[in-house]
Amino acid sequence: MSGHQPTVEELLAKAKQPAKDAMELHPFYKGKIQTTSKCCIRSLDDFAIWYTPGVAAPCRDIAANPMASYEHTNRANTIAVVSDGTRVLGLGNIGPEAGMPVMEGKALLFKYLGGVDAVPLCIDAHDPKDIIQFVEWIQPSFGGINLEDIQKPQCFEVLDTLRKSARIPVWHDDQQGTAAVTVAGLINALKLVGKEMGEVRMTMLGAGASNQAIVRMLVVAGADPEKITMVDSKGCLHKGRTDIQNGNDMWKWGWAQRTNGEQREGGFDVAIENAEVLVALAQSGPGVVKIEHVRSMAKDPIVFCCANPVPEMWPWEAKEAGAAVFATGRSDFANQVNNSLGFPGIFRGTLDVRATTITDEMCIAAARELAKVAEDKGLRPDYIIPNMNEWEVFPREAVAVGLKAIEQGVAQLEFDADTLYTMAETQIKEARAQIDSLQANGHIKLP
Amino acid sequence: MSGHQPTVEELLAKAKQPAKDAMELHPFYKGKIQTTSKCCIRSLDDFAIWYTPGVAAPCRDIAANPMASYEHTNRANTIAVVSDGTRVLGLGNIGPEAGMPVMEGKALLFKYLGGVDAVPLCIDAHDPKDIIQFVEWIQPSFGGINLEDIQKPQCFEVLDTLRKSARIPVWHDDQQGTAAVTVAGLINALKLVGKEMGEVRMTMLGAGASNQAIVRMLVVAGADPEKITMVDSKGCLHKGRTDIQNGNDMWKWGWAQRTNGEQREGGFDVAIENAEVLVALAQSGPGVVKIEHVRSMAKDPIVFCCANPVPEMWPWEAKEAGAAVFATGRSDFANQVNNSLGFPGIFRGTLDVRATTITDEMCIAAARELAKVAEDKGLRPDYIIPNMNEWEVFPREAVAVGLKAIEQGVAQLEFDADTLYTMAETQIKEARAQIDSLQANGHIKLP
Repeated sequence: MSGHQPTVEELLAKAKQPAKDAMELHPFYKGKIQTTSKCCIRSLDDFAIWYTPGVAAPCRDIAANPMASYEHTNRANTIAVVSDGTRVLGLGNIGPEAGMPVMEGKALLFKYLGGVDAVPLCIDAHDPKDIIQFVEWIQPSFGGINLEDIQKPQCFEVLDTLRKSARIPVWHDDQQGTAAVTVAGLINALKLVGKEMGEVRMTMLGAGASNQAIVRMLVVAGADPEKITMVDSKGCLHKGRTDIQNGNDMWKWGWAQRTNGEQREGGFDVAIENAEVLVALAQSGPGVVKIEHVRSMAKDPIVFCCANPVPEMWPWEAKEAGAAVFATGRSDFANQVNNSLGFPGIFRGTLDVRATTITDEMCIAAARELAKVAEDKGLRPDYIIPNMNEWEVFPREAVAVGLKAIEQGVAQLEFDADTLYTMAETQIKEARAQIDSLQANGHIKLP
Repeated sequence: MSGHQPTVEELLAKAKQPAKDAMELHPFYKGKIQTTSKCCIRSLDDFAIWYTPGVAAPCRDIAANPMASYEHTNRANTIAVVSDGTRVLGLGNIGPEAGMPVMEGKALLFKYLGGVDAVPLCIDAHDPKDIIQFVEWIQPSFGGINLEDIQKPQCFEVLDTLRKSARIPVWHDDQQGTAAVTVAGLINALKLVGKEMGEVRMTMLGAGASNQAIVRMLVVAGADPEKITMVDSKGCLHKGRTDIQNGNDMWKWGWAQRTNGEQREGGFDVAIENAEVLVALAQSGPGVVKIEHVRSMAKDPIVFCCANPVPEMWPWEAKEAGAAVFATGRSDFANQVNNSLGFPGIFRGTLDVRATTITDEMCIAAARELAKVAEDKGLRPDYIIPNMNEWEVFPREAVAVGLKAIEQGVAQLEFDADTLYTMAETQIKEARAQIDSLQANGHIKLP
């Protein structure tokens, strides 16, 4: 937020470079994820062990005890990244084929940051019942499911149903992942300005899947729902918003009943007044959140403008308006609220203790640990959250998540903190070393 | 078939070693397949290309033109290995979890022998309609589908329906793969004894998915269905077998109408009389096919006893009975009819020309080329089919399959034979080199 303030034009030009590189390099590699062996192949004779006839023995063992699949196959470290392509990034409903580059990228992040093997599955099924059916069918092959980029409100039904029906952990990154990382940032921002989670008034601009999940998680983390006001395109959510009562988003209607204790009515300008925290996940800016909005907030306002590619307001506008802490979704500004800080470590920990679910408390444990990584290094207005280069984030989250799962009784394996840390560190380091080795030895060519 | 004739006990003891190794080494590796990067990761900054924001550009490109998914993702080289676990090896219906070690092994073979990325998907869906639905849903993520170990007759409906409805090639290895490799062996066996495919009388012992597919493929390759007699547990299939008319295997009923021109009735002993070829895919032996059965065949009988783990008769029994050529499914006898000689090369060729289907003619082209690899080296009674170590099998099959697809108008890309060979050879060599490199550099540890 200091030095030369780039213009909108400069920023947009800079924002175009990755797209240009992506259009050259995606066809160069024709894919970002591949399969390879996890076991030795000393000669073709080894296939008598890995395939018929030897393989029949582990098959029989699993038939007698299905949990043995975690010992005889890669299930314990493999998840599916499932999307129907209906809400991909900010691109909307572009379909499953077009969602694949994102899901392959996600699988790559899972491996590189979390040591997790992830299989991208973009499916031509869009009814929530079909997506649920699909996930239930693939359970025998996977240790967990990461749902991704499914439109709302369908995603709510899919996640809520599967969290109850599935035998393996199911998670929707646009809900729980975004929420965990955002809550981590808010925890530290509040610390910086000396305010308490349970006491601050918060305004959420946008009432989509992410902001609904953030509110849910904030409440688990101690926020008071009555002090939260959510704003959608029609204005504040309140008990009288009958326009959403019979719509298909019953979850939003639920929040309209639980939040906004003052029952504020009107637009964003009404909701934001005297708020201490703003979380905007509304639409690409700038100009969606204005200087006067922030000026109408309480003292030392905390402002998160997380729309991509352009935040709802520019950092220099937030500064001019007096924001005490300002965060965005962009890597080229301070305080990036980046999903990639969450899911790799959270799944690492979940898989390592073989948890049957990912509870909201496990997410909060990850959020608190993520916040702590930054706090340990010293919080500043431009450093409330670590970045992806701060490698210890992922094993530390894994430990926090694993321990919470054990405490809550949803873990099928139990380890102490040191063991969990070593397990996570080993897996993640090995994933990186392997990719580095493939690159160094010419099996992944440089462009 | 020469030297020391091992006893049944010795053979069974030897057959147990791979199972013993498998039970030690599967838990050692905890999985045989993993995901890794296919693209460079020079620093974390590259994730701006592989993930948001850069990835939006290839997403948009695919949204405008779904076929661009073959350029921007690994779809062009990725298939799914789909099984419901209802007929795994000779183990029967052991369920999808227990099928996973086989499907992981299959994926490993696809990569190591064919350079094909394969994702094992064992599913908890068993109704043919559900399996069909599942495959249709996952089409956007894959360049092809290998169905595996699905019980009959369900597998017939699944394959027949998907070959019509799917936009990508769908293949059932237990049908087409087994048939292609068996036909290759029969082509060479007939050459050795100087007989013509269209003129010989053949007996098929067993009327399961594999033998039904072999008959279909033999007919495409020039065999006369009227000269083929199939035998199930109730005896010869003929027009009067009303016991199977209203069963759920209408395919078998269809063969009962088309084959057995003489309308032989009775058991296997009736069917085998004067036959020139026997293909037994019935049940683990020995003693299922007896010396007197083979003695009742025509001059220079060709006998394939392909049950696993023990063939329907021993090689020394076949020799004593006067078999001119004898083949089994085992790697420790001469003439192994091994599925792994088919699917890696056939899929390699299919993917390289982006064929929309795998026609029976493409399978026959692969079979003829596979036969030719052995013929080029000189046929002998104990060498009618190459083994997996004869590396050129796979690129040669890929070329034959690719050219046939182009000729039949089902290829979306066209190349000449030399180009196809180089493409296949490069992909397969690289897959092996990569795995060797991971092993040499300690990323895949030796046990």
